[in-house]
Formats: sequence, structure tokens, C-alpha cells
Amino acid sequence: GARPARRRLTVDRRREELMAAALELFSRHDAEYVSIDDVASAAGASRALVYHYFGGKQELYVAALRSAAAQLEARLRPQGGGRPLDELAGGLTRYFDFVEEHAAGFAALLRGGPANSSGEIGEVVDAVRHRLLKLIMERMRVEEPGPVLRVTLRSWIASVETAGLDWLERRDIERSALERMLVGQMVALLGAAAEHDPQVGELLDNLVKGEASRSADQGSTGQERTGTDG
Amino acid sequence: GARPARRRLTVDRRREELMAAALELFSRHDAEYVSIDDVASAAGASRALVYHYFGGKQELYVAALRSAAAQLEARLRPQGGGRPLDELAGGLTRYFDFVEEHAAGFAALLRGGPANSSGEIGEVVDAVRHRLLKLIMERMRVEEPGPVLRVTLRSWIASVETAGLDWLERRDIERSALERMLVGQMVALLGAAAEHDPQVGELLDNLVKGEASRSADQGSTGQERTGTDG
Repeated sequence: GARPARRRLTVDRRREELMAAALELFSRHDAEYVSIDDVASAAGASRALVYHYFGGKQELYVAALRSAAAQLEARLRPQGGGRPLDELAGGLTRYFDFVEEHAAGFAALLRGGPANSSGEIGEVVDAVRHRLLKLIMERMRVEEPGPVLRVTLRSWIASVETAGLDWLERRDIERSALERMLVGQMVALLGAAAEHDPQVGELLDNLVKGEASRSADQGSTGQERTGTDG
Repeated sequence: GARPARRRLTVDRRREELMAAALELFSRHDAEYVSIDDVASAAGASRALVYHYFGGKQELYVAALRSAAAQLEARLRPQGGGRPLDELAGGLTRYFDFVEEHAAGFAALLRGGPANSSGEIGEVVDAVRHRLLKLIMERMRVEEPGPVLRVTLRSWIASVETAGLDWLERRDIERSALERMLVGQMVALLGAAAEHDPQVGELLDNLVKGEASRSADQGSTGQERTGTDG
């Protein structure tokens, strides 16, 4: 039956199972309303086992958040090929898929945050933002952005987050229209930035013309792209 | 001497004094490193008195945050007159003055996003954002924004916050250049939004032409502006 099989699960598998149950619950509900008991019962485990693996609700939440962050980052990795703006559009679609799947958890995290104010949660959120910044720069073949470009891309990432939160709260705009608008925002923001840094202007030209994707179209990977200038 | 005078302070004055000391400390340091003892000693009061008025560090922090939020909102109220974009630029200058004065506290609060905060703290931060949204809409004579305009203005507010945080972290761009860039971002974002909602296009035309400020130039106040369409 199920019980002996369950007992044979390795420690890692067991932990993953608990984590999946936790992530599922934290995605669908504000963390405030998720208890260790809920997680235990969703995973068919004892409360003691959850404590054993994670220590407590805060640790479980942070672990689930890290797991969600890793999933998001994996989804946003360039899928290869395509003009940069099309790839940006594709990335936004995958971002909003993630937002939708983790709706309550995403909103709770970015609205006021879970009841505890450990710096760890903020660190995970900032690490995701930083990773997104890197991904976008890799795709634009920028190794070290000047201040104007850096601020602009960080602004756009904040903009996307805010749009995601707004969309979850109101849903009075088509998701696809919102995604297109955010691509338009990127172009518009780079245009505004170009007035302060001519390098951003060149970048924007390449981005819009799709020049920067030539080698991608020829099959190079995201990894190869960093460290060369294409 | 000082002591009898101090004793005669009313409850409100005493509370204000403690609050000012707390706000000063929370502005210059990450809240994590500010203790009740620090606040008491900065205000020349006893630790017991701080507890008496505020209950504890978390309550003191939230009270100081509310006080800072009220100060920020007061500063950002339209100063009357001027073209909308000039007034926006003026508002940004006052916003960055505030950011600079509360540097460490601002960075600690917004690093990691509102994620590193308890529900109450997130609520104060969100209330400020909401109030800024209202202020901008009043200034644009918009009573109820459509989804496209709402998302765009929320995005811009997030963008300004992020730029403020980036500037505190790096300071590798002139503050005045950054402020100008953020005005440019507003125009650029509204331009991108106009492709999704023609009303935003009209608004943008008025904003850039300064049409919307005509009655302001004739001396009307922010209060009068809401509820009419200019």
C-alpha cells in the first residue's frame, strides 16, 4: 500500500514533497493563512515531520520562496532564437504565467509581505530582480551597464512587477494587452534613457531592428553570448 | 533648569519629541540597528517612557513611518502654478530631497521591496503609493483612470521608487539628471500607453503642451481641480 512506499522515500524526496505542498499552499493563499498543519496534511505528513525538515513556518516559507524564485528564473531563461523584442514578449508571457499560477502568494509577497519581517525574504526578492537584470543585459549583450541603462532596466523590472500586482488585483485589462504594453514600455523607457546616454540609443536601435539577435538566430546560446560582444 | 521644563511638556509634545528622535534614527540607520535605548537616549528620556508611549520597537517604527509618510505627502502636494511637467519635475526634486534626508531608512524599507515588512508597514508604503497616484491624477484632472492609465502611473511610481533606491546605493549619476530622466520616463510611458488607450494620448498632449495647467496659472488650487474637468 501507500504507507511502506512512503516510508522508503529518501530524505530529499520527502523534503521536496513537503516543499511542493507548501509552495502550492503559499501560492494560493496569503502566507498568513497557511499553517504548518495545512502543509503537513496536504503532503500526507505529520506536523512533526514538517518541523523536522524546515524548523518552522518562517523557514518553510523562505524555502518555498527560494524554490519559486528558482522556477521563475528557469522559465525566464532565453528560449533561444527570435528577435530580442519577441523574446522579451515571450519572457513576459512566461512571467505572467508564473504570476497567475502563484497569484495569492505573489500578491501577498509584493503587497505587504508575510507577517514576519526577516531580511531573508527581501533578499530572495532582490536576488530575483538582480537575476532578471542580468538576463536582460545578457540578451542585450551588455556586460557592465552604465548608470543610465542600469536605472532604466531596474525601473522597467519594477514596472513589470507592479503591473503584475495591479493585474492580479483588478484584472480589468487583457493579460496579452498588458504584456504588449510592457514591451512598449521597455522601448519607451530606453528611448527616454537614450537622451541621457547615447550608448543606450545604439542599444535601442539594435533592439528594435533585431540586429542583436543575429547570432542567436544562428543558434548560439545565452551562455556563449556573455563575455563576447556578439 | 531643563528638568522642570521638561516635566511640564504635555503628553503630545513629549510623544512628538520621542517620535522626532525615532524618525531621525530610523532615517539614518537600518531599523534593525536602532534600539529603544538609542531612541530614549537621543530624546533624553527613559526607556520606560518610550515603551509607555509606543509599546515597543515595532510600534515605534510604524509610528515613525506614518509620520515620515505624512511629511512626504505634504511635500509632494502641488505647489500651485507651473506647467504640469515643470510641477512634476519640482515634485521629483522634493521627493529626492526626502529620499536623501531619510537615506538609510528609505533604503532599508524599500530594499527587498515591501516584502521585508510586516502587514502594517506594507500598508503604510502602499498608502503612500496610492496617495501619490491620486495626486498625479488630480494634477492631470483625471478622476477615474482607465486600466491603461492606472497601470502606467503605478508603474511610473514604482520606477521612481526604484530609481531612488538605486541612487542611494550607487550615486553614480547626478541627482538632477536622474530627476530629469524620470520626467522623461513619465512622458515616454504615457506615450507607450497611448497606443493602448487614445484617452491617454489626449492627456499626454495636454501634459506636454501645458494646456492642463492653464487654470492653475490663473490661480486655482488643487482642491478646486478635482471634480471638474478643467
